[in-house]
Amino acid sequence: MCELLGMSANVPTDIVFSFSGLMQRGGRTGPHRDGWGIGFYEGRGLRLFQDPAASSESEVAQLVQRYPIKSEVVIGHIRQANVGRVRLANTHPFVRELWGRNWCFAHNGQLAGFSPPAGFYRPVGDTDSEAAFCDLLNRLRAAFPEPVEPEQCLPVLVEACQGYRALGVFNMLVSNGDWLFCYCSTKLVHITRRAPFGPARLKDLEMVVDFQAETTPNDVVTVIATEALTDNETWHPYLPGQWALWRQGECLAQGSSE
Amino acid sequence: MCELLGMSANVPTDIVFSFSGLMQRGGRTGPHRDGWGIGFYEGRGLRLFQDPAASSESEVAQLVQRYPIKSEVVIGHIRQANVGRVRLANTHPFVRELWGRNWCFAHNGQLAGFSPPAGFYRPVGDTDSEAAFCDLLNRLRAAFPEPVEPEQCLPVLVEACQGYRALGVFNMLVSNGDWLFCYCSTKLVHITRRAPFGPARLKDLEMVVDFQAETTPNDVVTVIATEALTDNETWHPYLPGQWALWRQGECLAQGSSE
Repeated sequence: MCELLGMSANVPTDIVFSFSGLMQRGGRTGPHRDGWGIGFYEGRGLRLFQDPAASSESEVAQLVQRYPIKSEVVIGHIRQANVGRVRLANTHPFVRELWGRNWCFAHNGQLAGFSPPAGFYRPVGDTDSEAAFCDLLNRLRAAFPEPVEPEQCLPVLVEACQGYRALGVFNMLVSNGDWLFCYCSTKLVHITRRAPFGPARLKDLEMVVDFQAETTPNDVVTVIATEALTDNETWHPYLPGQWALWRQGECLAQGSSE
Repeated sequence: MCELLGMSANVPTDIVFSFSGLMQRGGRTGPHRDGWGIGFYEGRGLRLFQDPAASSESEVAQLVQRYPIKSEVVIGHIRQANVGRVRLANTHPFVRELWGRNWCFAHNGQLAGFSPPAGFYRPVGDTDSEAAFCDLLNRLRAAFPEPVEPEQCLPVLVEACQGYRALGVFNMLVSNGDWLFCYCSTKLVHITRRAPFGPARLKDLEMVVDFQAETTPNDVVTVIATEALTDNETWHPYLPGQWALWRQGECLAQGSSE
């Protein structure tokens, strides 16, 4: 299994704090030694850092922790391999261009006997996760040859996720840099931080941040993860089958596929 | 105008030496202040580092110079903006998946009045370069819905390049991680280093490397650039309209579109 990290915010926000906690699970406080990756949107551009090495030992991960990249949408992942060997091509998040935007995807779980029809988007590596991402985009493109608003994509997204979930475990984050969609199959939590901000203390590392000092009163920052990253705040768990669509830190739509 | 750097080698090879020279042209010995990027293939995976900041001042560039990533195929680029403002989405190299491989593309030059038909691949940013890359992939996919060998792609690639060149300047590198194709519109040089290796001295930085000490007798490493990177070796210039296809450091095919 793997760990997911997503962020949606209404101002460019530094994710270093949450990322620092997550990275400890890559070999130190967790067993996820088989690579990690994180994508930061910068406008329509996407900055992707990845490494098939354990995150707690990765030089690139140290750079990311030193280098305070601010972003409105972030998707991160650390991996414990189950399907597909440990190599860069199998490292999340995966990226494809659809409708002139960079789509970024990360998955926690595994799918049994998943063999979608060949389509336009094809996996580069051999994970079930990348195959599901390609299938998802192939379905969207088949339904909508031209760009549509995220709300219009929802029925296709949710139906596809239900189908993947029926094959195993499918906790997932996907974004086009504007909005962020999350789907819970077994475990996923979120927290929305807004004024008044308080201090937060990481579970996995001796580290506290006072968000009061780092933010302005109008900031809204939602963080989504497979497990709570802090131990002094309330994270809201999703139920199996629940999904949500986020933009600028706020929930645009949510529902359950049950 | 911009600067290009390409490498094709038969063993994973450290490009730090050539990259160090190139980066100096990003704001120090050259005027290319508007971003830089470099893609390293690692198997079928692609590691992409980019920054819209001047390469001679970029923190990410310093990481890349410290971090000896070895690769068999590399494509790098530093940018002096002419079309499209300075931002991450306009920063080369550009990447798309075609036939289950990561294709990576960088361009030096500019195209006047370029407006290709909309296709499957669409630009994320607003450069003529990314539009040409998308058009090139749309043409390949229209010609070959299923994967073909690079030699079969050549007529489509060369004809497309000829067309782009008719609109301005189009020096270009493209790779799928296995082979590397280069096209010369106005300036492009290459060097193939093989045993006996000697010392090489950068033009743009006080730096000498003794390839003898860094290589084995069977290594073959071809480097392609818009201008020679060293001043004590013979770089072979391409003529306008010339192209070449490289794999593992060796030239598989070459020709002229004149």
